[in-house]
Amino acid sequence: VFRPGPRPRCRIRLGRGALARLVGDLVQERPAHRWVVISDSTVGPLHGAPLAGSLREAGLAVDTLSLPAGEGAKTRATKERLEDELVRLGAGRDVGLVAVGGGVVGDVVGFLASTWQRGVPVVQVPTSLLAMADAAIGGKTAVNVPGGKNLIGTFHQPWGIYIDPAVLESLPESTYVDGFAEMIKAAVIADSRLFGALVRGMAALRRREVEVLEPLLARCVRIKARIVKRDERESGMRAALNFGHTIAHALEAVGDYSGRHGPAVAVGMCVESRLAQGYRGLPPRDTERLETLLVAAGLPVRATLAGTLDELVAAAYRDKKVREGRVHCALPLRIGRMPPDVTVAVEPDDLRRAATAVIDFAPPTL
Amino acid sequence: VFRPGPRPRCRIRLGRGALARLVGDLVQERPAHRWVVISDSTVGPLHGAPLAGSLREAGLAVDTLSLPAGEGAKTRATKERLEDELVRLGAGRDVGLVAVGGGVVGDVVGFLASTWQRGVPVVQVPTSLLAMADAAIGGKTAVNVPGGKNLIGTFHQPWGIYIDPAVLESLPESTYVDGFAEMIKAAVIADSRLFGALVRGMAALRRREVEVLEPLLARCVRIKARIVKRDERESGMRAALNFGHTIAHALEAVGDYSGRHGPAVAVGMCVESRLAQGYRGLPPRDTERLETLLVAAGLPVRATLAGTLDELVAAAYRDKKVREGRVHCALPLRIGRMPPDVTVAVEPDDLRRAATAVIDFAPPTL
Repeated sequence: VFRPGPRPRCRIRLGRGALARLVGDLVQERPAHRWVVISDSTVGPLHGAPLAGSLREAGLAVDTLSLPAGEGAKTRATKERLEDELVRLGAGRDVGLVAVGGGVVGDVVGFLASTWQRGVPVVQVPTSLLAMADAAIGGKTAVNVPGGKNLIGTFHQPWGIYIDPAVLESLPESTYVDGFAEMIKAAVIADSRLFGALVRGMAALRRREVEVLEPLLARCVRIKARIVKRDERESGMRAALNFGHTIAHALEAVGDYSGRHGPAVAVGMCVESRLAQGYRGLPPRDTERLETLLVAAGLPVRATLAGTLDELVAAAYRDKKVREGRVHCALPLRIGRMPPDVTVAVEPDDLRRAATAVIDFAPPTL
Repeated sequence: VFRPGPRPRCRIRLGRGALARLVGDLVQERPAHRWVVISDSTVGPLHGAPLAGSLREAGLAVDTLSLPAGEGAKTRATKERLEDELVRLGAGRDVGLVAVGGGVVGDVVGFLASTWQRGVPVVQVPTSLLAMADAAIGGKTAVNVPGGKNLIGTFHQPWGIYIDPAVLESLPESTYVDGFAEMIKAAVIADSRLFGALVRGMAALRRREVEVLEPLLARCVRIKARIVKRDERESGMRAALNFGHTIAHALEAVGDYSGRHGPAVAVGMCVESRLAQGYRGLPPRDTERLETLLVAAGLPVRATLAGTLDELVAAAYRDKKVREGRVHCALPLRIGRMPPDVTVAVEPDDLRRAATAVIDFAPPTL
């Protein structure tokens, strides 16, 4: 039987064997009548196809689709092509989608699920550390447009999120390290003890020791899930998750989205940490501790941008977080502590000063 | 001040002067910081531009955009072009959209608003009788794809719906008459006394007598709003609104969406009324009464389709309402009365028999 109706609370399963639990849960609860497993050209053969096979062996009707790997595929055109494929497969309102991959796959497939027949269930199976710690949780979906990152999307809570740290073994080093940016962010905005644990555990984390990683990852996931639960549509507290991201998104926009997200967030946190010193009285010592941990994580704390300061500022003013023509940043009081008002409107001159302290800009062309 | 935060309950204002109230409400409540009025090439000059002018005179920041008139514009490409225009205008998360037009404008602009920066407020200003009685109410948004009507879309409740029957004066006769199909549907599924009132008032309605129209339209709007309020995401009772529409959508799909919606719904109700006789014991006399009222309304009760019966049945099986491979129809017990289970799975042979009683098909090509 296919059981539609009110969506149960999104469940999160984290740990080795999570994918086996996914198969069991889908067989037992049947939130959809048939499934389409969607992955990208890199992750598909590694994790998408085996999962589709397990689901089929368990007796479920399963098709598979693929998108190209990389941020370049996070477009309206990719979504449109997948829609045409769903039409071709004869998928109806009773289909469910399974997103197997990193942040791009999760965002595109989540968005696809939210608008296919006005919304069908999606299961998130994040395979990158960044997606496990952050992107797959919270129901934000989006694609990029030439004018900005994540400008078109929805809020659509997944039916479930299944996180198996075992899949991290196959990640390239740089992709793995990217995830630390969001884990460190979670600690800065909500949990100073987690920050300390990340400092102590970083060497083991770099060696991908699952016994160290799993409990720390679980704390990051809980932080995000707790914030999202209180504020699903980002009217207040959820904005805390944007720490570092106003600048990160501007960096990514100037860089045309071709770079990695982790380094952009790392550098963005360094800039916004300086803003927090001015606007929130964040101790300069906390900026130093943040930078030390980022370096230990293999992430940059300085950047050279193939663009000008004016371009970066202009990009920040095109961000979703602009309200009434002013750039808003989520700035902490100190590591582990956000103020109740979360975001603050930042003056352009302060933005320029903080960015210049962290980023080298291309010389203006004459 | 721009006041984001929890969306207030969607308000519906119906009556002459509704557009003036819209201006006052937006000035007073400021659900967005700036506005983009979006209309189509036909309605824009008549109602979109004057409304944009009134909003500007009241001190609001207003831009205008336009889409081509007609169902052919209800596409992903149109939405994408409007998104590019919003980027060009520098619209942020603090923009609100005002949809001025018929069902196509409402559906496209509602969908646009639901995914622009993950959702911004939309105000619906329906200018066709069909949109006033039905399409603008309930938060369903969508575009068509080659594989089917309304396959891609969202549920996104408007911030407000402003209905001024005075704008109906400028409607072409056939567009005006289309609206009766949804008004009659509302009566059939929920209110036998409204059905009687429509029978008695039809001559005056055809003459567009606003004093007769306004209270009857208000009853249709209340029926729809009440059903939607109880069942926003169509898990149960809302499906009642689909009476006539399983067949209507199949007719439109075979006809490539170039026809009017009203006649498709009228013919769809005639087919599904026959199904209701078999599946619900609807009195044949009720089918006759329905057909008599449709004829009085200037709507068809028989059709000739430029396609085969097989094509129609195949199109019905591609509908969103297909679950577990079976076509579901919302079938009444009698005029004014739906059963609690609302929809029923219809056998292909019964579908064929009912369709053949109402529709002439093109002879199969040899």
